[in-house]
Amino acid sequence: MDLDKLRVNGQRLRNSLEAMAEIGATPGGGVQRLTLSPEDKQARDLLLSWLEQIGLDVTIDEMGNIFGRRHGKDDDLPPVMAGSHADSQPKGGRFDGILGVMGALEVLRTLEDQGIETRRPVMLVDWTNEEGSRFAPAMMASGVWAGKLERDRAWESTDVGGVVFGEELDRIGYRGSIPCASWPFHAYFELHIEQGPVLEREDMTIGVPKGILCLHWYDIYVDGEANHVGTTPMAGRRDALVAAAEMILKVRELPAKMGGNMVATIGELQNQPNSRNTIPDRVHFTIDLRSWDDDLALRSWGDVKADFEAIAAKHGCLLRTEETGRAQHSEFASRLVERVQTAAESLGYSTLPMISGAVHDASYAAMTGPTAMIFVPSIGGRSHVEVENTSWDDCEAGANVLLRCVLQSANEAST
Amino acid sequence: MDLDKLRVNGQRLRNSLEAMAEIGATPGGGVQRLTLSPEDKQARDLLLSWLEQIGLDVTIDEMGNIFGRRHGKDDDLPPVMAGSHADSQPKGGRFDGILGVMGALEVLRTLEDQGIETRRPVMLVDWTNEEGSRFAPAMMASGVWAGKLERDRAWESTDVGGVVFGEELDRIGYRGSIPCASWPFHAYFELHIEQGPVLEREDMTIGVPKGILCLHWYDIYVDGEANHVGTTPMAGRRDALVAAAEMILKVRELPAKMGGNMVATIGELQNQPNSRNTIPDRVHFTIDLRSWDDDLALRSWGDVKADFEAIAAKHGCLLRTEETGRAQHSEFASRLVERVQTAAESLGYSTLPMISGAVHDASYAAMTGPTAMIFVPSIGGRSHVEVENTSWDDCEAGANVLLRCVLQSANEAST
Repeated sequence: MDLDKLRVNGQRLRNSLEAMAEIGATPGGGVQRLTLSPEDKQARDLLLSWLEQIGLDVTIDEMGNIFGRRHGKDDDLPPVMAGSHADSQPKGGRFDGILGVMGALEVLRTLEDQGIETRRPVMLVDWTNEEGSRFAPAMMASGVWAGKLERDRAWESTDVGGVVFGEELDRIGYRGSIPCASWPFHAYFELHIEQGPVLEREDMTIGVPKGILCLHWYDIYVDGEANHVGTTPMAGRRDALVAAAEMILKVRELPAKMGGNMVATIGELQNQPNSRNTIPDRVHFTIDLRSWDDDLALRSWGDVKADFEAIAAKHGCLLRTEETGRAQHSEFASRLVERVQTAAESLGYSTLPMISGAVHDASYAAMTGPTAMIFVPSIGGRSHVEVENTSWDDCEAGANVLLRCVLQSANEAST
Repeated sequence: MDLDKLRVNGQRLRNSLEAMAEIGATPGGGVQRLTLSPEDKQARDLLLSWLEQIGLDVTIDEMGNIFGRRHGKDDDLPPVMAGSHADSQPKGGRFDGILGVMGALEVLRTLEDQGIETRRPVMLVDWTNEEGSRFAPAMMASGVWAGKLERDRAWESTDVGGVVFGEELDRIGYRGSIPCASWPFHAYFELHIEQGPVLEREDMTIGVPKGILCLHWYDIYVDGEANHVGTTPMAGRRDALVAAAEMILKVRELPAKMGGNMVATIGELQNQPNSRNTIPDRVHFTIDLRSWDDDLALRSWGDVKADFEAIAAKHGCLLRTEETGRAQHSEFASRLVERVQTAAESLGYSTLPMISGAVHDASYAAMTGPTAMIFVPSIGGRSHVEVENTSWDDCEAGANVLLRCVLQSANEAST
């Protein structure tokens, strides 16, 4: 058949997504499918049954990652991989992660329907614990697979109730026997919702990210002096919250000042003693700084830290800052990014070059082999919430782009 | 004897304060004597034994207020009253409240030592629940006594564990039989620590407050939109915490802008969802605004509210504001304020005219009859903390001023 005419079955993709959305469905219209929970197990069981229906070779590794392999004509060549994750945030949405898994399934079903043989094997992957909201860190099992996180530490991770990751993996029967370690692959494609408002704002269907922003996390502690709000004159106060407020505004101004695709956010803030009658003596807040340019992020932190020191001194406060986490930016394989772009255009979809502000399993995949992502619009830019939504047409469009990219890569002899 | 030569016994005053500081002593050197707790009962029992030692007529009213009355030659004339409270903040200090009660006790002991008869009766008072930290509101029993708070609602007040004020009053045996209602009095004097840094900074011994600032409480709610910190561009964010930070700085600028002895503080702030990864979508904070000029405080609130509305609009946030409480400023009786000033000067103490930023039982007393306060320095301006401190010399100086004021008022035929 003419492979250029090949399309996924949009209705079947929708049916798969809707079946998955029933597992852990929340009253607010989202899903709660925490890593290794009964709902995660149920989703895995359903996925396995679907993979077996189309005759894939299914393997599960020691981190619970699920792989479904479709043979290629040249079966020893490095495979083309596609997937994402089936776990969700607490009260999360029906698309984050699962779209990439159901998209890959739909691609494989389409190949099977049409009896299409590819030169290389094609593999679906469902990575364990991308969200990290039950067991830290996020992207745990793709990180172990990529050799960037330690397997044994991952197994020992506990949830807030003290439940151990490794034991929970056994309990739901998904600690597989094969080692969790990467192998050479020819391409990894991850279809995902954008989780931001840009595609919708620009009225575009397919986002083509060239990579993922770097990520710097800082924790800031400002210490002042608690005193009576009525009897302490304004002059000479050491108000930790006022100092923190000035710092928050400095962080807010950073992206406009520095450029470089930067976003900067204070998400968390604790105020002490947090009494109406008492001048705050300690504020803790977090900074999340992301940029395409790792050095720019570092320089920005240097700038803002100098501002913080001046602000703290002005208010007679003590300042302590900690770097809590740092990940470099990931650049996707330009050849695959172009493939996503070209595939989308040839299918008649509007496209927008972009950069992912969120991290994904693709971050670790990109450290191991040629990787790219395909983004589809998030309605209202909302994500990690029950109202997270993407139109069925956009889901189908994303899966069609994935199909074309997978096919092209799977039929290549070499790069 | 020459009444101008009369002085309190500073060592005995210190002994009384130290004995009281043992009741509810905390490891950090403060006291925790919450209203109607076993420690409050123990302090009351000790006070009663001391009042009986010097032959006072002791009465306890239905709110647990303790009065010790020393007869005057003209015993039907309205009495002169002096006192404060024996309850403390959680992990509070050894002087707040109890100094005014022990000071009054020392005055009465001195009169008794010297066999001094006064024209008018002199009464010591220990007001129940000034702090309000276990049972709201603060200054509860002086408020009921002044007819400004309802007795039955006060009895029904509960602590965080659901314990009812009235039942606790019975349990410790301090629900007296006489009604809690004010009577005509000739003067009420309250000796208290400053709870602020001004006397120490100015190197003055006796603060002479002309009254108490008005108090306005507001609660502010800012609603934005929670979104992913990495994928949401800076433009178009509706970040409730950034909006709140701008508002906090507007409040901070108010006193310098408006004058009028104003202080303005954000003591409490809650941020939601308070996750490092999520743009804050709701911030609640409190404002405490105090001024000598009630109208100025209202105009300031009007100004700042207009600023808040502009800030909220700029950030695409919704704003809701609530007035949570309001008390007008209290002006003390100028005749008694002058008496405090003159008494301190004649005793050779340095004095500073001031205004109290903190509310006291004297706030309610001042609504009922002629009232004044005597302040002594708080070391480092610290109060409501375990390190709260005042030198023994300053305690003695304050008690000597109280003695002289009480004596002069108690010997007056009329105003």
